[in-house]
Amino acid sequence: MSTVIAQRFAYESLATELAEQVRAGVLRPGDQVPSVRQMSRERGVSVSTVLQAYRLLEARRVLRARPQSGFYVAAPTPSGGEEPAPSRPRTVPTEVTTAGVVADILAPASDPALVPLGAALPDAALLPVARLNRMMGSALRRDPARAVTVIAPAGCQELRHEIARREWSAGARITEEDVLVTCGASEALTLALRATTRPGDTVAVESPTFFGVLQTIEALGRRALEIATDPRTGLCVNALREALDRHIIHACVVTPNFQNPLGALMPEQAKAELAELARSRRLPVIEDDTFGELYFEGRRPRSLLDHETEGWVIRCSTFSKTLAPGYRLGWIIPGERYHREVELLKNSSTVAVAVPPQMAIAEFLRRDLFDLHMRRMRRVLRDTIDRLAFEVLDRFPEGTRVSRPAGGFVLWVQLPNALDAGRIHKQALQRGVGVSPGFIYSASGNYRDCLRLSGGFAWSERIAEGLDALADIVR
Amino acid sequence: MSTVIAQRFAYESLATELAEQVRAGVLRPGDQVPSVRQMSRERGVSVSTVLQAYRLLEARRVLRARPQSGFYVAAPTPSGGEEPAPSRPRTVPTEVTTAGVVADILAPASDPALVPLGAALPDAALLPVARLNRMMGSALRRDPARAVTVIAPAGCQELRHEIARREWSAGARITEEDVLVTCGASEALTLALRATTRPGDTVAVESPTFFGVLQTIEALGRRALEIATDPRTGLCVNALREALDRHIIHACVVTPNFQNPLGALMPEQAKAELAELARSRRLPVIEDDTFGELYFEGRRPRSLLDHETEGWVIRCSTFSKTLAPGYRLGWIIPGERYHREVELLKNSSTVAVAVPPQMAIAEFLRRDLFDLHMRRMRRVLRDTIDRLAFEVLDRFPEGTRVSRPAGGFVLWVQLPNALDAGRIHKQALQRGVGVSPGFIYSASGNYRDCLRLSGGFAWSERIAEGLDALADIVR
Repeated sequence: MSTVIAQRFAYESLATELAEQVRAGVLRPGDQVPSVRQMSRERGVSVSTVLQAYRLLEARRVLRARPQSGFYVAAPTPSGGEEPAPSRPRTVPTEVTTAGVVADILAPASDPALVPLGAALPDAALLPVARLNRMMGSALRRDPARAVTVIAPAGCQELRHEIARREWSAGARITEEDVLVTCGASEALTLALRATTRPGDTVAVESPTFFGVLQTIEALGRRALEIATDPRTGLCVNALREALDRHIIHACVVTPNFQNPLGALMPEQAKAELAELARSRRLPVIEDDTFGELYFEGRRPRSLLDHETEGWVIRCSTFSKTLAPGYRLGWIIPGERYHREVELLKNSSTVAVAVPPQMAIAEFLRRDLFDLHMRRMRRVLRDTIDRLAFEVLDRFPEGTRVSRPAGGFVLWVQLPNALDAGRIHKQALQRGVGVSPGFIYSASGNYRDCLRLSGGFAWSERIAEGLDALADIVR
Repeated sequence: MSTVIAQRFAYESLATELAEQVRAGVLRPGDQVPSVRQMSRERGVSVSTVLQAYRLLEARRVLRARPQSGFYVAAPTPSGGEEPAPSRPRTVPTEVTTAGVVADILAPASDPALVPLGAALPDAALLPVARLNRMMGSALRRDPARAVTVIAPAGCQELRHEIARREWSAGARITEEDVLVTCGASEALTLALRATTRPGDTVAVESPTFFGVLQTIEALGRRALEIATDPRTGLCVNALREALDRHIIHACVVTPNFQNPLGALMPEQAKAELAELARSRRLPVIEDDTFGELYFEGRRPRSLLDHETEGWVIRCSTFSKTLAPGYRLGWIIPGERYHREVELLKNSSTVAVAVPPQMAIAEFLRRDLFDLHMRRMRRVLRDTIDRLAFEVLDRFPEGTRVSRPAGGFVLWVQLPNALDAGRIHKQALQRGVGVSPGFIYSASGNYRDCLRLSGGFAWSERIAEGLDALADIVR
């Protein structure tokens, strides 16, 4: 084991132990913890190991540093830190007509001059930029003609191979033959909806749901039916079951792992129930696992494919949140029931995606660099989301509620007193801060008092200032 | 002027002069032309210049080399070289149901082991592979984070700039703001059809037409109405006018320049009439200019946008036939009338395409390397198509007809005696030769006696042998 890795284990285990002491009440809010030097002597570990442990706990809001004094156990999360209430959407299929508004809201969202609390994109500093570029370069040298000349409708074989290999860790026991590489998860979702539904059909979606799902439903002339969710456990399977009793539903789009915008994680039991529902009602369920690799603790949450689904689940995911948004590489696993149809639809629209980015990511995965990269990225994102939640509760008005994501990098904020998030969004833009107003996550104009904040970066002064400005506006 | 360029002018002008002498009857079939040395002395040019001129004329079937003897004026094209007859399709809107069959036929078509007379792909040897790879490498070094992190829905600005610059040579007076970069011309076509038509609507297409157009129409649930064409002048505007009088037609897809599979070029007068028809009937016309840069003579043929169209023309094209099929880069110019709608549809499906290939092609265009590359490529393709047409007429049974493309790199072959091209296609595959059977270019099963041959390569022994095998099967 290298020294670097040994050190990481050392500071992480120290941090874990102290956090447990706080949880158990052995250390209480306001208590000063031993100085860095003292702790170093007591534990026989280096000063830097202790400092790293303290900094980690600070980022997670377990400790607070006081200048010229030392580290103290932090006060509990302000205002009790209530979570947003479970959603209770109207259960009537709705024509979606928000794409235009959403487009206008999103247009400025990727402006690099904005404080990046808007678009859910990972910061370049968190991504293996240099390595990916090197791998693309070496792939081009190894096979110069291939990148320029080959059209691979299903995707490059070596990339599909690596995707299939990783999918097993999510419980999707598939082979490379089951994978079709797409132009991002967006194309995957479009193909899945086109394969399972026809114009005018009704698609059940989580409420709130990712605006991209609503845009696609609108563009395809389908209707959306919003299903209740819990901010912690995501889609309410019972609500979906009741909706199925009352409506003809042709497909369901669901994000079991770290739902966007809630960050909710469906318990395995709920996934099993959803899989059973799909089977018994012959309901095509489109699983969007865009954020599944970004878990904060434990092991990778499972795919619906980990349960017996008899081919009613179509799985979609992407490298846009973990490796390279600029490569626009996603994939779809349509399963036997829909594979041929999805293939034909793809042949008739985009045919294939560019070869060079596929070569680069395949090589990155082949060299087993992904796990190492993800471990680092998950830690940063977890700390950022913790910090973001803390700061929002600390600075926003009494009664503000925030989600408690167990992964991903977005935070869902419900404002008190029916504050209008649309107006806040506009004012924030004027002050150079990007945020997403809640109503774009609904087909029927819900969530006007909600904001989604992105935390796809390491915490910085600039973020803190952006949040100050936002808190100012909200107050 | 560099020596290389001066030489090229010298041998080309010599070749042109000799070809004119043959046309004028000054030199007659069977006449021996002066030996290379003699001609070199007579004209005061180098031996290699004369040899290049003779080889060029040989490739164009003006001369024939006889081993150990010299160069002779070739016999006129065998069997009179009739062209396929103008098409007379049924003019009833048809549901398209060929995608499955077409997919099965196309699946093996890109097998590199096949003699490449099937898929219309340019051979790697004709493409600037090394240069494009170098440019991608240097773009990545110049701005390492951009390739990995940036999502550019409209496409990278510098690429749109270069596309707009080139489009002026086709008479499309546009700016970079008018261009949206797509995942190949296929995505462009899909977006154009989605923006202009609804499920069940009727789309007028050329008969025969590119099978990709039919696949897209089928996948989108539109119907196709086949319009008569002439093998030399393409879409028959009068036939379209008559169809408009009898049917409700919601859009028309047309390839004015080097139509696939005919290679037909619409005269400028016909383009003007089509533009006028689009205007007066408020008919959205989707112009596919995939092959427009591949003209064999004269100047670049014009876009329909060169005529006053009042926004009824949506223009689509691609770099897949000229630079890099593996990059999957196309573009769409929707015009003011459809820009917003196309943009929304794109946002809801693929969002954007990968950045690195865009950077590479933008740089290639910026350095003005495209014209030089295209001059070389056009010469090779012209010679190959000439040779292919000659060899087909020479070896196929009496009564075979071939098209006379003025650009592009496909040849349309009509077999005599109602021979079944589907069976020929299957037998050719078994003998390792790829071809496309004619019926995939029709929504209603026409062209069962036709084959499309691709000539996207420099002539070689392998091609000649493949053609031998094909001639064998046909006979």
